[in-house]
Amino acid sequence: MSTARAFRGSNVLLRAARTRPVVALPRESRRSFTASAPSLSKFYDNWEPEGPTVKTEIPGPKSQELINKLNEVFDTRSLNMLTDYSKSSGNYIADADGNVLLDVYAQIASIPLGYNNPTLLKAARSDEMINGIINRPALGNFPPTDWADVLKSGILKVAPKGLNQVFTAMAGSDANETAFKAAFMWRRQRDRGGYNVEFTEEELQSAMENKAPGASNLSILSFRTAFHGRLFGTLSTTRSKPIHKIDIPAFDWPQATFPKLKYPLDQFAAENAAAEKAALEEVEHLIQHYHVPPAAVIVEPIQSEGGDNHASPAFFRGLREITRKHGVLLIVDEVQTGVGATGRFWAHEHWDLPHPPDMVTFSKKAQTAGYYFGNPELRPNKPYRQFNTWMGDPARALLFRAIIDEIERLDLVRHTAKVGDYLFQKLEDLAVRFPGQFENLRGKGMGTFIAFDHPNRDEFLIKAKKFGINIGGSGQSAVRLRPMLVFEEKHADILVEALEKVAKTF
Amino acid sequence: MSTARAFRGSNVLLRAARTRPVVALPRESRRSFTASAPSLSKFYDNWEPEGPTVKTEIPGPKSQELINKLNEVFDTRSLNMLTDYSKSSGNYIADADGNVLLDVYAQIASIPLGYNNPTLLKAARSDEMINGIINRPALGNFPPTDWADVLKSGILKVAPKGLNQVFTAMAGSDANETAFKAAFMWRRQRDRGGYNVEFTEEELQSAMENKAPGASNLSILSFRTAFHGRLFGTLSTTRSKPIHKIDIPAFDWPQATFPKLKYPLDQFAAENAAAEKAALEEVEHLIQHYHVPPAAVIVEPIQSEGGDNHASPAFFRGLREITRKHGVLLIVDEVQTGVGATGRFWAHEHWDLPHPPDMVTFSKKAQTAGYYFGNPELRPNKPYRQFNTWMGDPARALLFRAIIDEIERLDLVRHTAKVGDYLFQKLEDLAVRFPGQFENLRGKGMGTFIAFDHPNRDEFLIKAKKFGINIGGSGQSAVRLRPMLVFEEKHADILVEALEKVAKTF
Repeated sequence: MSTARAFRGSNVLLRAARTRPVVALPRESRRSFTASAPSLSKFYDNWEPEGPTVKTEIPGPKSQELINKLNEVFDTRSLNMLTDYSKSSGNYIADADGNVLLDVYAQIASIPLGYNNPTLLKAARSDEMINGIINRPALGNFPPTDWADVLKSGILKVAPKGLNQVFTAMAGSDANETAFKAAFMWRRQRDRGGYNVEFTEEELQSAMENKAPGASNLSILSFRTAFHGRLFGTLSTTRSKPIHKIDIPAFDWPQATFPKLKYPLDQFAAENAAAEKAALEEVEHLIQHYHVPPAAVIVEPIQSEGGDNHASPAFFRGLREITRKHGVLLIVDEVQTGVGATGRFWAHEHWDLPHPPDMVTFSKKAQTAGYYFGNPELRPNKPYRQFNTWMGDPARALLFRAIIDEIERLDLVRHTAKVGDYLFQKLEDLAVRFPGQFENLRGKGMGTFIAFDHPNRDEFLIKAKKFGINIGGSGQSAVRLRPMLVFEEKHADILVEALEKVAKTF
Repeated sequence: MSTARAFRGSNVLLRAARTRPVVALPRESRRSFTASAPSLSKFYDNWEPEGPTVKTEIPGPKSQELINKLNEVFDTRSLNMLTDYSKSSGNYIADADGNVLLDVYAQIASIPLGYNNPTLLKAARSDEMINGIINRPALGNFPPTDWADVLKSGILKVAPKGLNQVFTAMAGSDANETAFKAAFMWRRQRDRGGYNVEFTEEELQSAMENKAPGASNLSILSFRTAFHGRLFGTLSTTRSKPIHKIDIPAFDWPQATFPKLKYPLDQFAAENAAAEKAALEEVEHLIQHYHVPPAAVIVEPIQSEGGDNHASPAFFRGLREITRKHGVLLIVDEVQTGVGATGRFWAHEHWDLPHPPDMVTFSKKAQTAGYYFGNPELRPNKPYRQFNTWMGDPARALLFRAIIDEIERLDLVRHTAKVGDYLFQKLEDLAVRFPGQFENLRGKGMGTFIAFDHPNRDEFLIKAKKFGINIGGSGQSAVRLRPMLVFEEKHADILVEALEKVAKTF
């Protein structure tokens, strides 16, 4: 029997309960009932199934056959689920065996609006998009006549406050690396005495030999358990897992401790504040004394690959203060946290910074990538210093524009904030009912960007599939929820019910 | 008056001449007349203008207005020509002011089949492509069910001989960097004692600190005047110009001299052979003695950004021999040379290697990127070592498949070889007629991948626009021709006539 029917049955009950608040519930539990997020079904008619369907083991026989074939030419050892995208829809991901799972992993947090979103389908069929696909420009040399419009009505329409410029890139890694390069150029310009000071002959020649002073002896400071990408510069700032780094040459760059918060937060307020203070002191010490001086600090609003590690807005305000004090740039890596999932368009909006970050990088749900900046001196002092052939992809920039329009039309950031509150509360209940299985539940008030630790995390994830849920992990023991922005309360109900079933098996 | 009319007029004459060989021509000049490449017009009806049209200065008033607007949010200092892609077609690039130029730069050598190619237009409108656009997978975790088919009928269909696997990437830079990573992992595995030897605790821990032994103390050897990209690892191997490298931290990696050939080749055979021998000896010396041992050597078949520097097949066979002898991998960077422009699908096919390269990287005309390999031990010994969220873009892989099909259908590699011979011969004539202006003409027998040096190169390029040609430079003084694969003899005639006009102004 398919599990879909069971889910569907219980769904009906839950929906009924939601529309008729139960008087006996305490005020706290009732909050999300009264402030419930509206359903999106009026916008997307019949676009997804009512619940998951699990027909076979995953991978099932058909998938296994195709995986064997794929493995001849492509590494399949990290394969999670061979996916039939033509059959996936909305929040549901489908495979070759007819299994359809509720997807709260969403291509490692990179699908913003559901599979086969009808509005994006329309955008993909537009003449503009087709032009972007077949006439791919070298954006630095031959930008399209409408490139300013595409940027202003898309990528830059959602630029973080205080940042009105963009350098476009291909993915999170090169977005971060080009931001690093901008930071190094900016810092050397400053040290050299200004934007218009010429390079010396010695600098020009030594650069060609990969030696100082032309190749600068500067660093990027990152945090323990951070993840910023896997190319050589970004991998030197990534400190998530040895398997990401081993055997690869790395720069001698510093890392500071990321505060390890204890949960529930209100029970450990003093201890957590002390941990954050110590971390900030370490950052300041490294900025002042590390033998390869940092030109910039890079930080994720929530360390995602590293295990969903949070810090308070006060910590980030402190970080902004310290970096400004010492003339070090602050790069906020919003590759995973950006584009709405935390209940704000950019997660760093939660911090209420008095001064914006110097650069904010983005990718994933944006479906394109790059870094935002505001300071005009972050444009290098000469052309061709920050340059490559494609410098991004206009087709993907057009898709981001369509995504932004849809997020605005359906008010999906606020929607996600509400659904996140609803989901978090239900998970709090589960945590009480299954002690030790939903440990360090975190992400309260951060939309659906929620995680918890489980002592048997990998087994937990595998079992979740059997109960109809595709879900991801991060760090050593975290189960991370990364639903799309079209995740609704009805999906939260299905998810929580399945998680409960998983928990019961332990 | 538009220059288009003038070109059209002379074209007619040239075409007439071509069909009626002039008896007085010496045998050598006649070769291309008898073996002329067929016209593609029967395949593409009325898809491009008959010649260039130059209406205004470039940029003209409309373009300048749009450039000013763009400059508010996007660096325009490297802008060459603001392009109206909807009006560009075939070999012709259009701008906002109605100027239409014959494009032999082709988005820095990255447009394979002309603007608005009708066959690619069809591919872009397919359901498959639209699915690829709106449902972007994390390929390592959730590959599409048909991913093996897409690879085998596309990217892998044109895999270089001996290489039957691919790791997909986003652009040339990360294609090269992931190839570097594969090389480092392979080398450390070998040094560690085999594919299945586990990492030590010390390696795992030191890797997290960016320190040896976990972070390997190995290098990639590249050549002087090479270009392999601008991210941190690739930039450490790029040795083209200081402006590409200055202020950016770099790895202490070795560079060998690239043989500087003298032209015409037949007049300097002994001297050139000696230069190549010396370069190979330097490579071998660096492999054996450089204090950061190379895990791999990376080389371009023709150093493109660095000034179109060629070496003989014998040089490359020597390089393969030396690298094999010392257990060092050979990575051939075909980002600019690949996909047909040299008259072979891959430029390294010209070398007749007894053993294939270990890895071949590609991008640009492929419209997608990655590296090919054959040795199964170049798959790292554990999953998630070579991994990132997107690992390429299936939409772009589908486009490459359509490009490959079209190249085969129209026999465009052979076509380009023939057109290249025709063009080279005409340029040889120009070189004789305008001494000092078409110096070191190179690329004979290498399709349309042709270059020459000009003493006033930058001025030459600007003037070419006035005569209806969009053309690029490379290195210090090279004019590089990078026509598309749909470049025909009639376009060569237009090009050469314009170059002659430019030459007359000096």
